[in-house]
Amino acid sequence: MAGSGNNFILVGSTGSGKTTIGRRLAEQLRLKFVDTDGLIEQAAGRSIVEIFRAGGEPRFRALERRVIGRAVKEAAQVISTGGGSVLDPINRARLKRAGLTIWLKARPDVAAARLDRATDRPLLGQGDRSQAITTLLREREAHYREALLHVDTSDRTTDEVVAGIVRRLRPASTSVPVTAGQNKYDVEIGWETLPRVGERLAALGRSGRVGVITNPRVAALYAGSVTRSLRAAGFQSFLITIPDGERYKTLRSASRVYDELVGRRFERGDTILALGGGVIGDLVGFVAATYLRGVAYLQVPTTVVAQVDSSIGGKTGVDHPLGKNLVGAFHHPILVYSDVSTLSTLPRRELVAGLAEVVKYGVIADASFFAFVEDHADAILGGVPDVLTEVVRRSVVIKADIVKQDEREAGLRKILNYGHTVGHVVETCTGYSKYRHGEAVAIGMDFAARLAQDLGMCDGQLVRRQRGLLERLGLPWVLPPIRPSSAIRSMSLDKKVRQGRIHFVLPQGLGRVNVEPVASERILATWKRAAVAKEGRNGILIDRRRVGALSG
Amino acid sequence: MAGSGNNFILVGSTGSGKTTIGRRLAEQLRLKFVDTDGLIEQAAGRSIVEIFRAGGEPRFRALERRVIGRAVKEAAQVISTGGGSVLDPINRARLKRAGLTIWLKARPDVAAARLDRATDRPLLGQGDRSQAITTLLREREAHYREALLHVDTSDRTTDEVVAGIVRRLRPASTSVPVTAGQNKYDVEIGWETLPRVGERLAALGRSGRVGVITNPRVAALYAGSVTRSLRAAGFQSFLITIPDGERYKTLRSASRVYDELVGRRFERGDTILALGGGVIGDLVGFVAATYLRGVAYLQVPTTVVAQVDSSIGGKTGVDHPLGKNLVGAFHHPILVYSDVSTLSTLPRRELVAGLAEVVKYGVIADASFFAFVEDHADAILGGVPDVLTEVVRRSVVIKADIVKQDEREAGLRKILNYGHTVGHVVETCTGYSKYRHGEAVAIGMDFAARLAQDLGMCDGQLVRRQRGLLERLGLPWVLPPIRPSSAIRSMSLDKKVRQGRIHFVLPQGLGRVNVEPVASERILATWKRAAVAKEGRNGILIDRRRVGALSG
Repeated sequence: MAGSGNNFILVGSTGSGKTTIGRRLAEQLRLKFVDTDGLIEQAAGRSIVEIFRAGGEPRFRALERRVIGRAVKEAAQVISTGGGSVLDPINRARLKRAGLTIWLKARPDVAAARLDRATDRPLLGQGDRSQAITTLLREREAHYREALLHVDTSDRTTDEVVAGIVRRLRPASTSVPVTAGQNKYDVEIGWETLPRVGERLAALGRSGRVGVITNPRVAALYAGSVTRSLRAAGFQSFLITIPDGERYKTLRSASRVYDELVGRRFERGDTILALGGGVIGDLVGFVAATYLRGVAYLQVPTTVVAQVDSSIGGKTGVDHPLGKNLVGAFHHPILVYSDVSTLSTLPRRELVAGLAEVVKYGVIADASFFAFVEDHADAILGGVPDVLTEVVRRSVVIKADIVKQDEREAGLRKILNYGHTVGHVVETCTGYSKYRHGEAVAIGMDFAARLAQDLGMCDGQLVRRQRGLLERLGLPWVLPPIRPSSAIRSMSLDKKVRQGRIHFVLPQGLGRVNVEPVASERILATWKRAAVAKEGRNGILIDRRRVGALSG
Repeated sequence: MAGSGNNFILVGSTGSGKTTIGRRLAEQLRLKFVDTDGLIEQAAGRSIVEIFRAGGEPRFRALERRVIGRAVKEAAQVISTGGGSVLDPINRARLKRAGLTIWLKARPDVAAARLDRATDRPLLGQGDRSQAITTLLREREAHYREALLHVDTSDRTTDEVVAGIVRRLRPASTSVPVTAGQNKYDVEIGWETLPRVGERLAALGRSGRVGVITNPRVAALYAGSVTRSLRAAGFQSFLITIPDGERYKTLRSASRVYDELVGRRFERGDTILALGGGVIGDLVGFVAATYLRGVAYLQVPTTVVAQVDSSIGGKTGVDHPLGKNLVGAFHHPILVYSDVSTLSTLPRRELVAGLAEVVKYGVIADASFFAFVEDHADAILGGVPDVLTEVVRRSVVIKADIVKQDEREAGLRKILNYGHTVGHVVETCTGYSKYRHGEAVAIGMDFAARLAQDLGMCDGQLVRRQRGLLERLGLPWVLPPIRPSSAIRSMSLDKKVRQGRIHFVLPQGLGRVNVEPVASERILATWKRAAVAKEGRNGILIDRRRVGALSG
């Protein structure tokens, strides 16, 4: 995830274009431009060559560390760093936390040519500069490689490079149509698009009032931007907040929202806007489904799970003390408006938990998407805009395709429950407090894959590859200690049970799953084997601790 | 309404065939046959001729009154009465309360021919019997005419007459298809069909469990019959009861039903059966719409409102403290199964209240149906099976037609709200306790017609004819004392308001209505005139008292 500083940090060898490109990039993004070498000269009151001459490299590095330490305290900047700054581990850590790092690469010969007449690069000396650059690169490349974006500047103009970076940092909005029965609506996926939600709603022909329903945490971040946008587009808007957390996804909370809406004489022609994650989306969707027998609403999801899954498909509902989503309705929004940049403000653990659903899509429907997630795991975790947007878009395409084929979960749509049967058990038996939904689903997916392997439906390669990706993303997969008999009992209350048989979504290969009724003895057998495996392997419980560390 | 005794009582002149037809009718209906003349002879230990000879007509009439007094204490009989029994007002009142009265008519010449050789008719003497019958008839016909069914036996065989009566008392089931969007289902309308509901449900391909949800009053009457039928058809069934009354049509009651269903691990493949009136139907429909995001349910309506209106069209919901049906969903049943005979057990006032919706259908959609209700008002109130069944059937046809054209109440369906705008005001401002829903709707229909007249949309003839029918059925139409300003305020919370304008369904003529936004000043003007009219006319408030008396 991009650091809280929300900066863009350019790293790379001398001659790669950091200063020129950085300045132009800052202009385009309307951000402040900061050049650490410049700041050093300013701080020292002399040129870099002079600093080197007077105090040598150690003096320069000390100054550089101090300057970087100050620069990363600001936000919303493009920071161009000196080529050797990455050698210092403190600098590296600070830069990583401060924002999204971009490695500008240039072939040594190109870099050398660019520096042909430069006299301010003390480390290059006066000999074969291309050779000197190659030498420096050998020492530094591993650190550059840690940057989230790698941009080759060798054979492109500054404008081309900057345009390319801007496309990646501010990806254009795309729209995925959803067709579900007679309902047709768009999922609009963009970056920093919240300030335009009012326009978009007006373009749908809505008018009147908009009730923005959210939780206090999300309200603090986005309610201002959303309501300003609504008012600018001619809507009257008001805000209703529900306490944050799954334990408030209840009929009682819904009832309080009804009270508010009735009290405000909310009418059929008015619009509800659900701003937040899955809990808000499900609860508000249910209120929209049932207030005056159904009013129009739009989903403005701000979490991974909500953007890739729960906002699409019209499933709404609240929890019952004995099970999740036991009370609900199908009610499609008139628009899903996903501003992927909102994911930048998520706590690390929540982002990671949401990625379980992303991995799920790869396994159930699209092997190439699974590979894309494998290839871009760091960029996803680092919050690279175009990669995150692409992850959301491809997930939405998969979900929309499944919903289109089976609006009411009569058949195909059940495959979306991959990992959820045991996931629900994990959540229920741990009181919905220990695991995030996505973490529980990750554990459930590993179980389902193992069960499929035990039943001879898939090979161990699939189990290992899925587990590997879950681990890389920081997701747990080890079953917590739950008595197998309790697990089976818990499963039998699940909606995926029909006439006593427990239905599992089981992978046959990447991108292919089947829904099968499984006898409870087979489930028990895999459960016991999984539990033993855990105990038999040292340290496997660091799974949970790792997630904790990542979210710290 | 047929008396609580549920008997069929044959009245008519001597020679009309009461004994022969009564005996055959009792066989066909599998009821006990009782002949009061026979009972008199039994009680006296001698023949009627002998009784007349010994004590004259007074002695006979005294015995007859005693015998009838005893006979009407039993239920489920066909009672053949002596031709002169109707002369006694106590007999008339008792017979009326004891069940459905049937007048067997025969032309005097036919009756005389039938009695050609009879010697046991002391009042006919030995002269021109046809003439004697004509004379008796002159004296008695007004009383015979009060019978609910008039059957001419003159030129028909006993079998033909009995078959004709049976067709009227046990009308065959009919089925009205409902198409609403992608939902298609039947409304099956029959007489004494509850004991076959299990078979019918099985024929739809359902299996598994059936949760019968009802209130204690309806449960006491019908739950046994329904659950026996379900079990006989291979279903497991269980019963959930909700306290009786509109004030229990709440989210809290729904929540208690969810708890029961969750507790019983009710599954998606199981079926809910809503047994009762509109409150049960709406509430249970809402639960079915929202439990596990929608399970299959069937409506088994047992009140007029439920059979002619609320069970059809998929509107479900619960009330909010600030307004009726503010929380709900559209969810169509898989079958509406109407046993019209259940209306026989309704308290008089409830039957009458339900008829307001019937009158409504005539006004909004079908002038000939309005005339049918006018022509059969007594038979409807008396619960004549074929007439009641026809009333339900024609109402359902009208409702189904409207629902088909406008499933989601986007346009046409709004005409069903005729009388409801002011009806809701009346209910709300009197705390939902003084008036039944139908009574409030009757008052609302009278108001809407007056408003239409004031706006020049219809003539006074329509207002008078509607009012006349409401009165004949025992429905109120006078506005209760509600401050006009409170009324307008109450209206503006109604769903029929859009952007502040108050929409009214206004009649243009019988069978033709329009939905129009009306300025609140015009409504106020009509309201004030209506209130003044009430105060200016003496005794008009007996409206309310009449209903009270009828329901006593």
